[in-house]
Amino acid sequence: MTDTHTARHRTKRKWSTLARGRGSQADHGHEEVAGRYLSASVARAQRDETAGQVLDRLLAHPPEHTEILCVTDESGHLVGILDLAQLLRLPRDQQVGEAAHRNFPRIHADSDQERVASMALHHTLVAVPVVDTETRLLGIVPASALLHILRREHVEDIHRFAGITREAVRAREAIEEPPLRRLRHRLPWLLIGLLGSTLATFIMARFEHALGINPAIAFFVPGLVYLADAIGTQTEAVAVRGLSLSHARLGSLVGGEVRTGLLIGLVLGGLTLPGVWLAFGDLRLALAVSGALVAAGAIATTIGLVLPWVLDRLGSDPAYGSGPLATIIQDLLSLVTYFLIIAAVMT
Amino acid sequence: MTDTHTARHRTKRKWSTLARGRGSQADHGHEEVAGRYLSASVARAQRDETAGQVLDRLLAHPPEHTEILCVTDESGHLVGILDLAQLLRLPRDQQVGEAAHRNFPRIHADSDQERVASMALHHTLVAVPVVDTETRLLGIVPASALLHILRREHVEDIHRFAGITREAVRAREAIEEPPLRRLRHRLPWLLIGLLGSTLATFIMARFEHALGINPAIAFFVPGLVYLADAIGTQTEAVAVRGLSLSHARLGSLVGGEVRTGLLIGLVLGGLTLPGVWLAFGDLRLALAVSGALVAAGAIATTIGLVLPWVLDRLGSDPAYGSGPLATIIQDLLSLVTYFLIIAAVMT
Ligand SMILES: [Mg+2]
Ligand SMILES: [Mg+2]
Ligand SMILES: [Mg+2]
Ligand SMILES: [Mg+2]
Ligand SMILES: [Mg+2]
Ligand SMILES: [Mg+2]
Ligand SMILES: [Mg+2]
Ligand SMILES: [Mg+2]
Ligand SMILES: [Mg+2]
Ligand SMILES: [Mg+2]
Ligand SMILES: [Mg+2]
Ligand SMILES: [Mg+2]
Ligand SMILES: [Mg+2]
Repeated sequence: MTDTHTARHRTKRKWSTLARGRGSQADHGHEEVAGRYLSASVARAQRDETAGQVLDRLLAHPPEHTEILCVTDESGHLVGILDLAQLLRLPRDQQVGEAAHRNFPRIHADSDQERVASMALHHTLVAVPVVDTETRLLGIVPASALLHILRREHVEDIHRFAGITREAVRAREAIEEPPLRRLRHRLPWLLIGLLGSTLATFIMARFEHALGINPAIAFFVPGLVYLADAIGTQTEAVAVRGLSLSHARLGSLVGGEVRTGLLIGLVLGGLTLPGVWLAFGDLRLALAVSGALVAAGAIATTIGLVLPWVLDRLGSDPAYGSGPLATIIQDLLSLVTYFLIIAAVMT
Repeated sequence: MTDTHTARHRTKRKWSTLARGRGSQADHGHEEVAGRYLSASVARAQRDETAGQVLDRLLAHPPEHTEILCVTDESGHLVGILDLAQLLRLPRDQQVGEAAHRNFPRIHADSDQERVASMALHHTLVAVPVVDTETRLLGIVPASALLHILRREHVEDIHRFAGITREAVRAREAIEEPPLRRLRHRLPWLLIGLLGSTLATFIMARFEHALGINPAIAFFVPGLVYLADAIGTQTEAVAVRGLSLSHARLGSLVGGEVRTGLLIGLVLGGLTLPGVWLAFGDLRLALAVSGALVAAGAIATTIGLVLPWVLDRLGSDPAYGSGPLATIIQDLLSLVTYFLIIAAVMT
């Protein structure tokens, strides 16, 4: 299971300087790749060595990492791995090459670190061997690095969804650093959001006539925009996880999500229709609002899936598609949809 | 560093059945506690044993987990730990009790699993010893469990921020399960959001008079609400991380966040004031909109910090304070603030 997605993952660093942020790891020349965590001081053995020989050698010259025993052929190609616990249980005269597992993940030094951690979890391994392009053993990503990677990727997702450019390594740092420095990490995405907000204002202004005739049309704007974003955010969360780990076809995924979104829209719209009709005594308005909710269900789920997918294809982290950029796009689409439905139903 | 927050963490399961969701782990009787991952088959030694004795015993009777050697006194109380790599490097005649580290985390079986993983990362350990109330060794949470916990907590946060009640264990499941089942996991928070949206509609209706006189007041609603939520979401992300790991005083944290929020509000408001004045030729409106942005900076950061803190104090996961509930609360406050400022400035 060699990581064939390496090339694509490497281009992921290039999308945007905003996306990286000034103080981010990428700027310190630290790519999010397995090579950063590679340790060459690992337990290794040739396949024709016996368990007893290997153990004696490990005791005499203990390597730094003993999570797994990496078994190679004569030229150093990795041919199998063994847990330390399994090694200890072998008869002393058994050849380690016979006992070693052959179904294991092999990654390259430039494999994406999150993918490496996912492979470890998938194979229930606590360390992952790293090989060169000719599958010669280079070392392992040890357990301590995998723990560190999983925490970093968690923090990274939180910051991408919130639109914070720099990840403070320690949680307390982020909550205790000087306000001016926090401003610098938060303002970039907010300035993009301000542009989007300006656009939202002009969309509203474009429908001044309708709003002037019936101010009640405006009453539903915050609620509709909120619900459309909430539906889209759910899809984004599912998509960000799914896309970063699986490589399913977009078409088949969109189908299921749009059906889910339509169901959600029908439930929310079905509850809203009688409510608005009763409260405002205006059946056309009630139809427009509930129709906008059904449309929001379909549109928000589509955007919530397509946006992370496009970012992924552009070589960026799909998690950017769960943040403030995604929200303002959803908001703008919700406004346009609502006013188009208003125009169709009310006139 | 015994985990003294155990009792509080345990009550965290009780906040809300909605928060758990039908298919969640909690409903299967699986608490998010260290005990779920406890392994008793670990490398252990008494403090007066020599390194050679311990190694010979481990080779003769290998335990399942060898990440760390747990060193106890005669009555089984944990007194220190050693890396396996360190054990291998000791002179055969050295007592393990002398070499063992005494500064290590000790957790209880009912300690919160995320806290356990954080302790491992903090101490750069790949396994954490578990003790009973009298500090007698029960076993360890092994490296494989720590990896699993970190991934689970990552997924949990993503779902809480998106308002999805059930966590599909595998990412593909969530993106491929039948639409009706997805509906069930997503609708609960959306129905709460629908209630909030109804409230938003009535707040807007309450200011019908102002909107009727000057429809331009409505133009800024989507943008303002978006930016306030964006600011608040950034604070929530910082707070959720900070609160779940640190236990700093709320007061001191709010101060720094509110100052950050005011700076953000001043930048956004400063950019907005001339823009709105130029575009709409209405200085009072421009003052109201930019004033609302400054207010949003202060209010959104306060709510973004206080809401996760309150949830934490109520025994819930602060991460619920980063989800759709937090967003609708921010949205409602933004509307009220904006219209109060409009009323003050425009009349
Ligand atoms: Mg395997
Ligand atoms: Mg990453
Ligand atoms: Mg990621
Ligand atoms: Mg990063
Ligand atoms: Mg919003
Ligand atoms: Mg974004
Ligand atoms: Mg969103
Ligand atoms: Mg220590
Ligand atoms: Mg948790
Ligand atoms: Mg958590
Ligand atoms: Mg859970
Ligand atoms: Mg919530
Ligand atoms: Mg929010």
